[in-house]
Amino acid sequence: MESLVLFTICLMTIENVRSLPVEMPTATYLQQRAQIVNGEANLRVGGSIQLSAREQQVNRLLMVAKGKEINSSRTTNGPSFLPSIHFFHGKDLIEESEVFQIIKTMPKGGGLHLHDCSMADITWLVKTVTYMDHCYMCTDQNNHIKFHFYQTPPSNPGCPWKLIATERQNASDKEKFDQMLYNSMSLIVPDPVKTYPTKDVVWKALYRVWDVANGLINYEPVFGKYFHQALKEFHEDNVQYLETRALLPVLYNLDGSTIDNRTFVMELYKQNLDQFVKDHPDFTGGRIIRSGYKFVSTSDVLQQIKESIAMLQQYPQLFAGYDLMGQEDHGIPLIEYISAIVYPSQQNITLPYFFHAGETNWEGTPTDNNLIDAVLLNTSRIGHGYALTKHPETMKLVKSKGIAIEVNPISNQVLKLVDDLRNHPASSLLAEDFPVVISSDVPALWGARGLSYDFYMAFMGMTGADTDLAMLKKLAINSLQYSAMSPSEKRTAITLWQNKWEQFIDRILGDEPPAVPFVGKQ
Amino acid sequence: MESLVLFTICLMTIENVRSLPVEMPTATYLQQRAQIVNGEANLRVGGSIQLSAREQQVNRLLMVAKGKEINSSRTTNGPSFLPSIHFFHGKDLIEESEVFQIIKTMPKGGGLHLHDCSMADITWLVKTVTYMDHCYMCTDQNNHIKFHFYQTPPSNPGCPWKLIATERQNASDKEKFDQMLYNSMSLIVPDPVKTYPTKDVVWKALYRVWDVANGLINYEPVFGKYFHQALKEFHEDNVQYLETRALLPVLYNLDGSTIDNRTFVMELYKQNLDQFVKDHPDFTGGRIIRSGYKFVSTSDVLQQIKESIAMLQQYPQLFAGYDLMGQEDHGIPLIEYISAIVYPSQQNITLPYFFHAGETNWEGTPTDNNLIDAVLLNTSRIGHGYALTKHPETMKLVKSKGIAIEVNPISNQVLKLVDDLRNHPASSLLAEDFPVVISSDVPALWGARGLSYDFYMAFMGMTGADTDLAMLKKLAINSLQYSAMSPSEKRTAITLWQNKWEQFIDRILGDEPPAVPFVGKQ
Repeated sequence: MESLVLFTICLMTIENVRSLPVEMPTATYLQQRAQIVNGEANLRVGGSIQLSAREQQVNRLLMVAKGKEINSSRTTNGPSFLPSIHFFHGKDLIEESEVFQIIKTMPKGGGLHLHDCSMADITWLVKTVTYMDHCYMCTDQNNHIKFHFYQTPPSNPGCPWKLIATERQNASDKEKFDQMLYNSMSLIVPDPVKTYPTKDVVWKALYRVWDVANGLINYEPVFGKYFHQALKEFHEDNVQYLETRALLPVLYNLDGSTIDNRTFVMELYKQNLDQFVKDHPDFTGGRIIRSGYKFVSTSDVLQQIKESIAMLQQYPQLFAGYDLMGQEDHGIPLIEYISAIVYPSQQNITLPYFFHAGETNWEGTPTDNNLIDAVLLNTSRIGHGYALTKHPETMKLVKSKGIAIEVNPISNQVLKLVDDLRNHPASSLLAEDFPVVISSDVPALWGARGLSYDFYMAFMGMTGADTDLAMLKKLAINSLQYSAMSPSEKRTAITLWQNKWEQFIDRILGDEPPAVPFVGKQ
Repeated sequence: MESLVLFTICLMTIENVRSLPVEMPTATYLQQRAQIVNGEANLRVGGSIQLSAREQQVNRLLMVAKGKEINSSRTTNGPSFLPSIHFFHGKDLIEESEVFQIIKTMPKGGGLHLHDCSMADITWLVKTVTYMDHCYMCTDQNNHIKFHFYQTPPSNPGCPWKLIATERQNASDKEKFDQMLYNSMSLIVPDPVKTYPTKDVVWKALYRVWDVANGLINYEPVFGKYFHQALKEFHEDNVQYLETRALLPVLYNLDGSTIDNRTFVMELYKQNLDQFVKDHPDFTGGRIIRSGYKFVSTSDVLQQIKESIAMLQQYPQLFAGYDLMGQEDHGIPLIEYISAIVYPSQQNITLPYFFHAGETNWEGTPTDNNLIDAVLLNTSRIGHGYALTKHPETMKLVKSKGIAIEVNPISNQVLKLVDDLRNHPASSLLAEDFPVVISSDVPALWGARGLSYDFYMAFMGMTGADTDLAMLKKLAINSLQYSAMSPSEKRTAITLWQNKWEQFIDRILGDEPPAVPFVGKQ
């Protein structure tokens, strides 16, 4: 409070003040007011959920923790409110949050917006994959690292291949060496605002680190293991189901030969998923969404769509549909691909779409209008949909058609759509029970694991201080409800989730021993 | 575009591609799509306005300029998009914008959200007021300056008064000296992110610089002149009407005596307004909204409300109503003042309210709920309403009751609610024809004048690339329509505005000589 100004104000008002009993507002007024407050509470995601007595007990613990965090940050000189600061600075602090700890143990359902090559912790790539035999690296003139497995590396002028084992051996500090490898595949930097002044710069870095990691991931003996590691991490984060946007890339062997066969890649996904589900009966499974880049020609997209149709027939349980991805602001708008996109329906074939759309703040541009096309072209869900709240007619369609919006809070912050997540437009969608699901996009790139960090951001930054466990519960249910599973699979998944939820409630209330990582059937 | 990644992608997709004629989307599809695009265009503020042929000509010029700015910023390595960067860095660049030049010459109607002591350029205070006789300054131990007029300054240990004329005379660089005086009343700093890391810090600075400026403004011979200067600047910015949130402060005389008489202050406002309107027949006039601070007791507020009732009777043409202001996050919520706020209606007296509400990003807190109380307590307009889009039920009431939202884009940026104005929630309100008016709050604090900078921010940052002159026109009309004027006064004001609008169209089309500052009836 500003003593000087307030002093002046007080001087101005104190004189002639008559004493007045501070009356309570009338009952009628309080009733009117409660009607709006409750109306808004009922309207939001989870607003229709009635918490049981035991859930209410957990909710009280959660809300005390939430209130404590919010109130301490609202105090002058209080700590930064974590959803308002950059995730690179906030991550460690989030991990100390009680709310985060509760969210971590909560069964969160499914992750529906994830990209194949950034789902598992980069630490695993460094500590496991780069320790494998025959792993080479090179450093180009820009000091950018590349990785590749070779029996005998070819000559590579400008970026000569060196055996990582030897390089690490020769390094004065092996931990520093490994950190350098980690950094080459991550977006994390000490000063993200300075390092990434624009969206273009951070996207360029994203493409580059993807390419670096793919040098390791696309090695045939690694590819399946990487996916397994992703499943393991999400499972440990109490996620039971994953839908992966997959490039289905060309893999390579040690002898330099390549495996240019998407069915082969799908088989790797299938085997690993099947095995994981077998080993973890509390894991539902996953789906693959083939994702092409929205930079290629219409005929390329048509080709991918035709292949997707074939894959849907070959893997009806595993293959979910098709998407177009990449930095949307520089991508070709969906409308330009329309002749390819409508091909399945022209053939009376159903190929579900899961289009990225509206991952932009350039309102009124062709990019922005992707939202309209995604909806008209019957997308099953919308990836990001960041711009949706600027499109009132499209919003109505999204709601009436039940098209889920895949919101990825941290991604939108790191990729520079919004700094303070309290300004994320999805807060309006959450306030009005839009079919929102929370996902983590490419969590590995910023050192996140699973969905908990993004659930934390959504719950703390994109909902009110009075929004509670009911929304978290509904977000988890949404993630299964709006998945690509069949109705009967959904029922099974939700039943499984319900059991996990009850265990979660028991655990928080101390009626069950602390969770231990699930290690299979034995 | 990322050559490496794209190269990989292309390799993956080029093979086996069959040539495909790029088909145009079907007519039916384009029709469906156009229905949504047009539906959204019609729905937005100004969507129902049909531009005349001549307005369309101006619109084409405007939209070419708007498109050029947006497209150049969308290009990789293009210039920063001005609504996305801090106003302190963008101001000079905005002044070079063609869109800004058009907006500057456009008749913008009224400014409905402005605070008494920050409406006129600080340069005028420095270059005119501090050059007046008997103007003293002191510099305290924190290097903070204070101003006061004195015949003979009292002893002031810790901050000894010095005659500015002498100080300036002794300064090695008079321009630097004056700049120092300017800085003491302004928020402008070279690095706002560093200087103002939190909302509390910038608000503290705001209160401080207000206090400094008030040392000059509240000198009785200056007070009316300052208001005149504000009228002059807004008039020069093609604004024809002003509603001022006024503290109605205690003024002081040279001999140290004070004028603790709000009627005296109202008289100064009245004389200056009447004279200005007389001298400028193209200026409609203004209103005063008494604003108390939301830090005082309920009995203080009741006292102010009672005085406001008396003032409304005494100055029915000039006095508009009552408001409560101050950093809302630390202020007392409206609900706690309710017994005072309902006093007029209990007496069957109408006292219009113009409450600040929802100037917060702390959703679900008592501060945030001010929005609900403001609406239920029949506020005529809402100051800021930044949090409104998180309140769907309150939004419905705002729309059905026709409560205008006073949006102050630059203020919300400088006072740290939002960095990139494309994330300002009012973009959703503008997209759905909410009764929005654009104002500038305390423009002097960041070196803005009038309304043009804020109109520029709203038009460029908070509307789409396809949003045009019709919205600007509607925003100008809204500002008169939602003013505190009587219906007949509004009609007169809008007729006057209409003439100015036609002149503006003529001028842009080159059919009329360039505007010269209007200098009275002669």
